[in-house]
Amino acid sequence: MGKTIAEKIFDAHLVDKPYEGVYVLSLDMVFCHEITTPVAIMDLVNRGLDRVFDPTKIKAVIDHVTPAKDSKTATQHKILREWARRHNIKDFFDVGRNGVCHALFPEQGFVRPGYTIIMGDSHTCTHGAFGAFAAGVGTTDLEVGILKGVCAFKYPKTIKFVLKGKLPEGVYAKDVILYIISQISVNGATDHVMEFTGPIVDAMSMESRMTLSNMAIEAGGTSGICYPDMTTVEYLWKFIQNDYPSKEAALKDFQKWVSDPDAHYEKVLEYDLSDLEPMVTYGYKPDLVKPVREMEGTPIDQVYIGSCTNGRLEDLRIAAQILKGKKIAPTVRGILSPATPEIYFQAMEEGILKIFYEAGFSITNPTCGACLGMSNGVLAEGEVCAATTNRNFYGRMGKGGTVHLMSPATAAASAIAGKITNSPLYRGK
Amino acid sequence: MGKTIAEKIFDAHLVDKPYEGVYVLSLDMVFCHEITTPVAIMDLVNRGLDRVFDPTKIKAVIDHVTPAKDSKTATQHKILREWARRHNIKDFFDVGRNGVCHALFPEQGFVRPGYTIIMGDSHTCTHGAFGAFAAGVGTTDLEVGILKGVCAFKYPKTIKFVLKGKLPEGVYAKDVILYIISQISVNGATDHVMEFTGPIVDAMSMESRMTLSNMAIEAGGTSGICYPDMTTVEYLWKFIQNDYPSKEAALKDFQKWVSDPDAHYEKVLEYDLSDLEPMVTYGYKPDLVKPVREMEGTPIDQVYIGSCTNGRLEDLRIAAQILKGKKIAPTVRGILSPATPEIYFQAMEEGILKIFYEAGFSITNPTCGACLGMSNGVLAEGEVCAATTNRNFYGRMGKGGTVHLMSPATAAASAIAGKITNSPLYRGK
Repeated sequence: MGKTIAEKIFDAHLVDKPYEGVYVLSLDMVFCHEITTPVAIMDLVNRGLDRVFDPTKIKAVIDHVTPAKDSKTATQHKILREWARRHNIKDFFDVGRNGVCHALFPEQGFVRPGYTIIMGDSHTCTHGAFGAFAAGVGTTDLEVGILKGVCAFKYPKTIKFVLKGKLPEGVYAKDVILYIISQISVNGATDHVMEFTGPIVDAMSMESRMTLSNMAIEAGGTSGICYPDMTTVEYLWKFIQNDYPSKEAALKDFQKWVSDPDAHYEKVLEYDLSDLEPMVTYGYKPDLVKPVREMEGTPIDQVYIGSCTNGRLEDLRIAAQILKGKKIAPTVRGILSPATPEIYFQAMEEGILKIFYEAGFSITNPTCGACLGMSNGVLAEGEVCAATTNRNFYGRMGKGGTVHLMSPATAAASAIAGKITNSPLYRGK
Repeated sequence: MGKTIAEKIFDAHLVDKPYEGVYVLSLDMVFCHEITTPVAIMDLVNRGLDRVFDPTKIKAVIDHVTPAKDSKTATQHKILREWARRHNIKDFFDVGRNGVCHALFPEQGFVRPGYTIIMGDSHTCTHGAFGAFAAGVGTTDLEVGILKGVCAFKYPKTIKFVLKGKLPEGVYAKDVILYIISQISVNGATDHVMEFTGPIVDAMSMESRMTLSNMAIEAGGTSGICYPDMTTVEYLWKFIQNDYPSKEAALKDFQKWVSDPDAHYEKVLEYDLSDLEPMVTYGYKPDLVKPVREMEGTPIDQVYIGSCTNGRLEDLRIAAQILKGKKIAPTVRGILSPATPEIYFQAMEEGILKIFYEAGFSITNPTCGACLGMSNGVLAEGEVCAATTNRNFYGRMGKGGTVHLMSPATAAASAIAGKITNSPLYRGK
């Protein structure tokens, strides 16, 4: 019988099977940020285990609160910075070179098809967009990963999502993943890999695929995986051009990491999305999703465009298309956090930052910022935010605050209207 | 006998003399920010005195921590925002339109020669650069100001500073004010107005004069005043062009607010600054100042360019001239906080942000940020920052951190060197 991509990756990285169903995998990458890694570092130091398995396979960034907002965060930065220096971890992205981990690391070419990747961050599933197995882990797993370069996982069960049809104009990957989560619920993929396939995924850019994979965890998924294809090759080409004689050769190699036609799935779910509308969350769970149409007119206090879900150049370009020549409503604060310095710079070069500035947005340095209520846009009691982020839990962006998740297009349109509204790029059925 | 400018302003604004030596002045402007004003607002509300004397004379901004970094700051924002809406304070600068108060309010044309201005902020003295009497006050005075539009002051005693000669190339207003404070000490002007005069002040831009006046409080000065002249008229012209038939007419009117030749001064201090070198602080008081030459090689962890002292376009242009085509040292984090959205935008248009970006700086939204250790660049224990800010108190930018105050030129050069060093724009004696 054939294998799923996740099974292939597991089999290729198997180091040990300590007991039935548990695979200890060798890791291609251990990603680190300044919130969860310092806890692991200090524990390793205290145990006399201040070592790293391979400094070239560890990548670290300060992204959650940057620049430091207080003494506590400054200390977290310092612990990560000194650890990186001590162990010669060259790919450490300090203040000024830093951005949101799940946008920065792919942009740096650190993610490849077939890789195993862990990080102490729930949205590590993002990197599955490249045909990798990438999963968020807790402190103990992270410590073992740093020390030994391995991590134990249950052998993967996969749910295949076949996304058929063609997305209407003005409907995006964010709408797709919100819709999928609404259909299967926040527990719908618990302990499973979510495999995203079909013509809609095939037509997506790498950026859109990252948006899709990013929110797998919001349905409980361990990882959200897309098959590598020529789009993947094109994105990675500048990093791999010396490794392959041609793009076609790279594609052929990458296609080792595609599921076999006769692979076994726990479930196969098919959706025709040709009539999908822009979606938005209500309430406090990411599976509480409605068409924007049904939420029209919901008042908002703040609009936040950024995060590992939707802070990439593609997202900023779409929002800028809507904001160009417009002002946001005077009752709304607009915050733009480009996800990485490169995105910030490109957006500046393309005149996108100017559009956001002229519309009345505050443009922060690249950071996770307000997404998880840690900095740069925390809500006060009773405030409502239209956000391109990934979680709408009660108080996620600030105690007593409400978050509505949506695409950058819907967020930009809502900023202008001062309330939730459909974007002019969506022309309805 | 003639009068000083401060005496003229006092006499013109006198409302009451409750007892000998105390003048109750009518106020032309009450400036507000989100740290000190919400305390006053809540007290007024609790006393049943939720009123404002004149909403057109109250200007408010969120600048210290923006966007909100936590629930506490989000609540401060909300209190100020709702108060501004409730009282129809039209000049309220919310997130996206906001920047450092002492840069933003002059840029908006809110400061004029002869004005009386209070604010719950110690660097309110900055606005004296326009020939105004501007002073920082405590909560009670702020509440009275908001409610009644008046404030009580002791009749002003003035120290006149006559700054002679011509500043060497690469020496700036920041070096001048650091030098003056070092000469008179941090108590040298306590309870006095500092009047800055002479050919060196005459030759300064409004931006440089603001840098000079800004740090009057660091020598204990109530206000730091420069005489209005054609430079003042030029800066304000776009705001006053309908009030005067010509610039000459405006100048003539403004010159009401210049001290008489026979005015009485407590002291007159003359300095010839033709040989002044770039200056930098050591230790933890702003009067501990040495030539940069004597501090060459002092290691630094962070460089911060911004604040009400030196976050203006002139400052950014000077720093960019030094940073152009260079990279900052890998051991140093560079943080640029342009002081206002307009400065941010102009810096973007002129390619200055690009230079900072390419040099490796993190570029934040306009904010007071790290200057007072509240956000966007707080130091960890033991870290050292080269800063264009105004206070080097122990822990000012973060508990256990050290700050060296300097000009933007010295800060930019030090960022590249990774240690304190003179800027290439200064060519020595």
